[in-house]
Order: sequence, then C-alpha cells, then structure tokens
Amino acid sequence: MDRARRFWGWGYDDAGLTPAEDATLAARIAPFLPVDETPMAPPTPDEIQLAPPRLTPPGAIAAWCDLDDVARAGHTYGKSFRDVLRALERRWERPPDLVASPPDEAGVVAVLDWAGDVGAVVIPYGGGSSVVGGVEAPADDDRPVVSLDLHRLDRVVEVDVDSRAALIEGGVFGPFLEAQLRPHGLTLRHFPQSFEVSSLGGWIATRSGGHFATLHTHIDEFVESIRAVTPVGVTESRRLPGSGAGPSPDRLLIGSEGILGVITAAWMRLQDRPTFRASAVAQFSTFEAGARAARALGQSGLWPTNCRLLDAGEALITGAGHHHLLLLGFESADHPVDDWLARAVELARDFGGVVSPREDDAHDATATWRSAFLRAPYVRDSLVRLGLISETFETAITWDRFESFVAHVRAATEETLRAVDAWPGIVTCRLTHVYPDGAAPYFTVLAAGAGPGRLDQWGTVKAAAIEAIIAGGGTVTHHHAVGRDHRPGYDRERPDLFAAQLRAAKRVVDPAALLNPGVLVDPID
Amino acid sequence: MDRARRFWGWGYDDAGLTPAEDATLAARIAPFLPVDETPMAPPTPDEIQLAPPRLTPPGAIAAWCDLDDVARAGHTYGKSFRDVLRALERRWERPPDLVASPPDEAGVVAVLDWAGDVGAVVIPYGGGSSVVGGVEAPADDDRPVVSLDLHRLDRVVEVDVDSRAALIEGGVFGPFLEAQLRPHGLTLRHFPQSFEVSSLGGWIATRSGGHFATLHTHIDEFVESIRAVTPVGVTESRRLPGSGAGPSPDRLLIGSEGILGVITAAWMRLQDRPTFRASAVAQFSTFEAGARAARALGQSGLWPTNCRLLDAGEALITGAGHHHLLLLGFESADHPVDDWLARAVELARDFGGVVSPREDDAHDATATWRSAFLRAPYVRDSLVRLGLISETFETAITWDRFESFVAHVRAATEETLRAVDAWPGIVTCRLTHVYPDGAAPYFTVLAAGAGPGRLDQWGTVKAAAIEAIIAGGGTVTHHHAVGRDHRPGYDRERPDLFAAQLRAAKRVVDPAALLNPGVLVDPID
Repeated sequence: MDRARRFWGWGYDDAGLTPAEDATLAARIAPFLPVDETPMAPPTPDEIQLAPPRLTPPGAIAAWCDLDDVARAGHTYGKSFRDVLRALERRWERPPDLVASPPDEAGVVAVLDWAGDVGAVVIPYGGGSSVVGGVEAPADDDRPVVSLDLHRLDRVVEVDVDSRAALIEGGVFGPFLEAQLRPHGLTLRHFPQSFEVSSLGGWIATRSGGHFATLHTHIDEFVESIRAVTPVGVTESRRLPGSGAGPSPDRLLIGSEGILGVITAAWMRLQDRPTFRASAVAQFSTFEAGARAARALGQSGLWPTNCRLLDAGEALITGAGHHHLLLLGFESADHPVDDWLARAVELARDFGGVVSPREDDAHDATATWRSAFLRAPYVRDSLVRLGLISETFETAITWDRFESFVAHVRAATEETLRAVDAWPGIVTCRLTHVYPDGAAPYFTVLAAGAGPGRLDQWGTVKAAAIEAIIAGGGTVTHHHAVGRDHRPGYDRERPDLFAAQLRAAKRVVDPAALLNPGVLVDPID
Repeated sequence: MDRARRFWGWGYDDAGLTPAEDATLAARIAPFLPVDETPMAPPTPDEIQLAPPRLTPPGAIAAWCDLDDVARAGHTYGKSFRDVLRALERRWERPPDLVASPPDEAGVVAVLDWAGDVGAVVIPYGGGSSVVGGVEAPADDDRPVVSLDLHRLDRVVEVDVDSRAALIEGGVFGPFLEAQLRPHGLTLRHFPQSFEVSSLGGWIATRSGGHFATLHTHIDEFVESIRAVTPVGVTESRRLPGSGAGPSPDRLLIGSEGILGVITAAWMRLQDRPTFRASAVAQFSTFEAGARAARALGQSGLWPTNCRLLDAGEALITGAGHHHLLLLGFESADHPVDDWLARAVELARDFGGVVSPREDDAHDATATWRSAFLRAPYVRDSLVRLGLISETFETAITWDRFESFVAHVRAATEETLRAVDAWPGIVTCRLTHVYPDGAAPYFTVLAAGAGPGRLDQWGTVKAAAIEAIIAGGGTVTHHHAVGRDHRPGYDRERPDLFAAQLRAAKRVVDPAALLNPGVLVDPID
C-alpha cells in the first residue's frame, strides 16, 4: 500500500486522467452533453475536518489503527457516483471513528473482541471499491464505527499444484494475488473491473463477477473452502472438490457482505495460465439479434470465455466501433480452441452476425474495449468532476423476458432522466455474462447534471431503474452486490422466510449485531 | 403408481431378478464368497403386523391417507443394505403411523397444518430410495409419524423453451419427468442410479449426483428457483439465471434433506437432447495411473460428459472387463464432439492409457457398464437374500490427498471386514465424478455375512469406513446425502457454527420441529 490511494475517488492517485486527458474528454463529450467549463477540484487533505473519533483503541490494537482525518475520510464511502460526488462536495457523512488494519487473523479477532467490548459497529473493508454503499456506516445507528481494513492479510499461504488450488488470505488485491500465483504457472483468473483495488475476501463476500462470460461467471464457483472470523469465534469449512453433505456452508458466506463474518482466508480453485486463444467480433444490426446469438452461444455447450454483447452506444462510447458488437473469445491451457471459435462464428452468422474476416480486427476491438473497461472508473471520476451524472447498474433476467425487460428498463431510465431534467442523456447496455437460461444486462448512464441537485436527480433515476428491474422479474444485482443502496430492491426480491433465516443465522454468530448492521437484513426484528 | 413397488426392497415388483437369474448369480458368486443355499424369502404382505396407527386423519386429509400395514411398512425404511435386510428379517421398526399422499400443494399445506395441530413428525418421502436412513423415523422421538409421500405432485407445469427451463412439481419420478419433457425436445438429463424410483424434490433435497461426470455434477447447478412448503408458510425464490443479491436462498434448501421445508416445485434448467456423441475406453495398468489421467481430463477444460474410472475389481464385477478402465464420453446437441474426444484420448495415452482402437468397443463397454449400473440395486437385493453383505459408500477428496486417501479407506474397510469375520470380501472403487481439484471415489463392498449378525458386522465396517474418510479429509457423502446414517460423520465434517446457523434457520420455518427432526441437526440445542 505504498502507492497512494485516491481518498476521494477511484483507484490510485497517480493513475487518474491527467489535466490534458481531462480536457480531451471534455471536448469529446461537449457536443452531446453540457459540460462544466471548470471541472470540480478534488478535495485536498487539509480541507477535511471531521468530528473527533469517539473511540480510543487499546495499546495492542492501537499500533495498527489510523485515526487521522484522511484515512477516516478515505474509508467513509465506496466508489459509486454518489460516493465520489459527495467527496468532491467535501461532505464526509458518518466517517468511521478509526481505521483498523490488523496484520493477521489474530488481529482481526482482537478487533472484533474489542468492538464487542466497547459496543462499536465493525465494517469489513477490502479494497473499498463498492459501488452500492457496501462499506458505508449505517445511517440509523449511533454506535461508534470501526472500519476494519484487511489489506495486510495479503499472502498466498499455500499452493496445492496437484489440485490446482491455493490457500489465500482475504485481504489480498488482484494484482498482488496474481503475482504470487504466477511463479506456479497458476492464476485465479478473476478480473472484475475493480481488479486493481478489490480483495479476494471482498469478491467472495459480494459474489463478484469475473473474467468468464459463461459457465463460471461468479467467484462462487472457485471457492473450495472459507475461513472467517465472527464475533463468537472462527469458522472454517472443509476443503472439498464437491460434497452432498447438507446445504453448503460456503454458500451461506458467499454473498454475505460482511454480516456473517470477516473472511480472512479461502482455498481457491485456480486455472493453468492459458496458452491457446482465439477471438472474433461479430457485428449485428440490432441489439436483439446480437442477444439471440448470445443466447445460442450460451446454450451451445461451447462455453466461450468471452461473450460480451455491446450495444451501439456502448461500443461508440468505449471507442470500439459503431455497431452492436459481440466480442467472442476462447482460451485454453490444454488445447487449441480454433474449432470452438469456428463453431461459435457459425452460430453468430446464423443470427445475422457479420464476422470480421481478419483475426486482427477481433484482437483490436477486444483490446480497445478491455483497456477502456479497466480505465472506465477513472474516466467516471473525471465525468463527475465535469458536472455530469455518470453511473452504471446491472441485473440478470431469463431469456423468455429478456427483450421486453431490457427495453422497459432502458425506457424507464431515460424517461426518469428527462423527468428530473437530467437531459440530454445516454443509456447504453451491454451483456456482461451469458447463461443458458438468461443473461446479465449492464446499463451505463451518462447525463446532464443539475449542479448541486445531481445527487437527488440520480437518486430518483436509480429508484426508477430498480423499480423497473424488480417489477420486470430481474435481480437487483448480478454482481455489484446489495450494500445499503440496493436494500429496498433486495427486500422485494428475496423470499421473506429466507430473510428471517438469514437474520437468525446472523444472530448466532453476531448476537450484538456488530458486523455491517442493516446490510442485507435488519439484525433486530 | 399403478406398477407395484417392492415394499421390502428396491424398485418395482416386476423388475427384480427372476429365480433363474438369482440362481445364475449365486453360481457366479459362489467360487469367491460363501453363498447361502436357500435365498431368504421376501416377506409377503400377510406377514406384516404393525402396531395400530396412533393418528386419525381428519376427513379432508383422510381421502388420500393410507393406514394399512403394507403401505406403512413400505414407507418405514429407505433402500440401503441395512434397510433391505431388516425388511427381509420382517423387522419394521418405527413405521410411520400413516402415509399421506396429497394430490397437490394445498394438500401438502393441509398435512403440515394438521401435523402441527396433533404434534406429529412429518417425513417428506419422494421415491423412498434413500440409502442413508433419510426417510426413517427418528429413534429418540415419541411423537406419531406421518410419511408425506409426494408422488402425486408429478406434473411438468410450464415449459419455457427460450430459456430452456421448466416449472416441475417436486414429486415426479425420473421417467415420467423425461416423458413430459421429450415432446419439447428437452431433457433434464439427470440420471442418478435411482432415476426410476426417485423424485425431483428428493434430488434437490439430497444434492443428488447425476449424469455429468464433470462440470455440472450435482443437481444443484440445474436449479433455477425453488418453491417449498414450510410449517409457517410457502416460500419461493425468484427465477434468475444468476444473481449476486446476497447468499443464494436456493443453496440453503438444496441439501436440506427435508428439515427446512417440503419442495413442491422447482424451475429447472434443461438441456437440448444430444445428437452428437463420441466415446472411448482407456485401459490402465494401475488405478492410480487411471486417476492421474482422470485428473488431467478434469483440469483440461474439455468437460467430458462421462469420465468414470473403474478399478479392475469393479470392472470385473460389472462384466466390463479385466483392467482398470476409464470410460470417456462426450455429447452435444450443437456440434460434433470427435475433436474433443481425440484430445481426451491423447491425454489418456499421456498417462499410459491403452485406448481401444475401435469405437464399437467403447460403446460396448459403456453400454455394458450402464446397464449393470441401473440393474445393480436389484442385484444387491438378491445378494442380500443370498446371505452376503452388499453395500456401497462414497466420498470426495482433493487430488493432493487422493492416492493415500483411497488406499487408506480401502485398507480400513478390508481390515474391518476381516476383524468382524466378514471375510472373504471384495472392496472395489470407482470414480463417479471428476473435478479440477479432486474426485468422488465410490466404494462397493461385497462380503461374507454372519447370518443374523450381518447388520452389526456392516455397522462396524461402515463406521470404520466413515472414520477413515473423515480423518483423511474427505466428505461423509458426495451424493448419497447425510440422512440418519451419516449424521456422526457429518457432525465432524461441517463447521459447528454452521450447524448452529442451520438449527436457527430451521427454527424460523419449523418452530415445533415437525420436519425430519434429527436429520442434519438436532432441532433443540
């Protein structure tokens, strides 16, 4: 963590857009959307003035606790549009009283014990990249708050080459995790957009969506066993390749968003590093035709690694072209995948896809899109500074309802943008993951903001989008998680009896409701 | 259900071995194992005399309740060696007081309501094919017992061809389920050994292992949403192809073995019926070499449909040959799979496999094995009647421990057979499912029995096998479920805090502990 994090926005201080890039971006957007002449200035450390911390850590813990304002401000929010805008407005609501960064699992135990003693809320913090209010303190809870930053738990502890698995600490970020696996010829190959600044434990706790567009889409499938610290003790599941012994203990922790324990380590299933690759890009005249091709591919049993459909607006914004594009890719460490790709291309053509004859085009479009993908959150920060609304949301839906659902969600979002005067605006859609029985549509919104009213504008638009998603039968989140922002939609989506069971399961391991209270369920009936 | 079930043993009355087949079997086994001259006679209905039922169903329910002795005896046990032997010995311990077969979900609700009113235990009963004491009444509970037989909930309610999914009632058995899907060109393609006499709800409740040897091994992966009746109400999850909204509600019901609710329906992901197939058989000089080939295949990303390794004893018993055999198969509804098979054969050869040059051999060996597979439980009944111990057990283990684990479990089983004078005996092993990080070894035991002491002999051997499995890091069950028989091993395998959470989750939906009390957890601390 020597490299400085950008406490008010995405990623690292040294990796944002340069002033020259900001100017180029503004010039590129200005023909379509009203852009502020002077971008908002990022806050500087000396501008932060927080109420003094209400906690004084005891000596054993104090050594790795941070009570200064910048650390506390940097751990107040995640990185959604709403979070970045509040930080740009110098509003630090409900900052944690301190940031504890224990060096090991014993330290995590010590923090939970101490928090129990002093009646403090504990918010597990991985990379802080949540875009759903997942690392924010509860609004309706007056207890002091500890942000439990796990970044020092960053080791690959053990590698089992035979089983292609490794025991990995929960706080490790993507790049350092991969760096430790590389000498073994292995990779987790989990590349969410937040890869640089998110952690293994965070991925598991939020059911992160990764590299693979089909088959193994969520981190869930790569979890072999989990070790977690709860207020009543440590729990660890058995390492098994598969089991039918009762409901899976891991599946209760996967997606638990910090309310059932702090994930300190996990045995993860790994991949051999791929050596064979083949890719292609198919252009479609309509998004719907592209989606039908994606469906056929999802149901073909070919299991492409990449099968992302970008609508024309999306492709345009990311510089990937002017058509609806289906990016197709196969990779393997075992065998050439050209035959797989050839059949996939046939399928794309069956649905009207025009496939680039030259492999180079495919590589170019894919590379262009991937680089834009990883850089997008930094660009988002600049767009927010330019006065715009810039945000994404995502869902999943079965194929039978897919076309009308996407059309309805898009229309509801556009209508509400107009209704709140966030217009002109652009709503684009891509499919990030494809299943035999449905797909995960991902929406990007870029719209004119109304100065200080931007937060409320977006709040209204997001509420309308969630309403359209839930009413249409989708999920409030495919891979961004629930956090505090999606709680109203989640409450309508999940079965009530399951919520009651989740509450009961939480009470068993967290009777005082220290851990992320109010996320997923209200701990008290 | 017009076709009569064999109330004392496996399957249907008309499908067991004929007396001539019994004689052939005895003659084939006699050179190796001591076979009784006169097989035990199956019990006849007039031999059953049970204590009178302690329950009188009210009128609305009485119409579909069975109180006669044969129905109650037929629902007393599952179909394990222990179950069949007790039935052959005319011992019906703790029979249910009645068998309720509601015609629809409202009837299920009515039974649970009534059971709550009269304080009766309810045991959900699908096909009754449990081999782990999963449908047996608790030994330490004096309440009257209702066997809730779901076979009348047997409809495919709705088919969604676009998403390749169907809403299916929980009580349907395999053959009728497939018959209803066939006109749509679709199939669930879930073929556990119990396929003929087990139900969809049972498969989900027990995390049944199915057709696919790699990738999608358990029924778990094919569940899109579940509907279940609990004592406090009906619960239903949302149909989604994927979601990251909190822990999966379905994954808590999958494997819940009837303690959290009665599964009345589920949306299931289906397959197109395969039209392309390719298969091969590879012979290995050692089981370990075959396992290394299986591991390479499991890690190759080829995802063979069939990848079963039979040890030489297993192959001999089932008539599939004299070597350690790896049965390899690929199938697809979309594309020829010959290239896939060709690469799999290369891999098998890399590990010393001798692959049949002619495709016919592969089909023959596979067909021989499959037919023996489906017939095996009927043969088991005959072997029990001949005085032998005949049983199977299974587990899963990661590759790093695989060889020593299998050797140790086999040795512990053989030693204990000797120690209890169940000798001569044979312990064979096959791999039923193969994962990138491990495999599921399945053991078959055939041994000399000591007359009336056979139950105790087997009890001692099974306990030793479980001890070896649990101590060696395996799971007490890969796909047979926990039931009452595996509870001691399960208690050591699953995390204690998870058991407490499961108990809490049960209390929410079943506060009076009506449903399968004592399975998975003791409902009362």
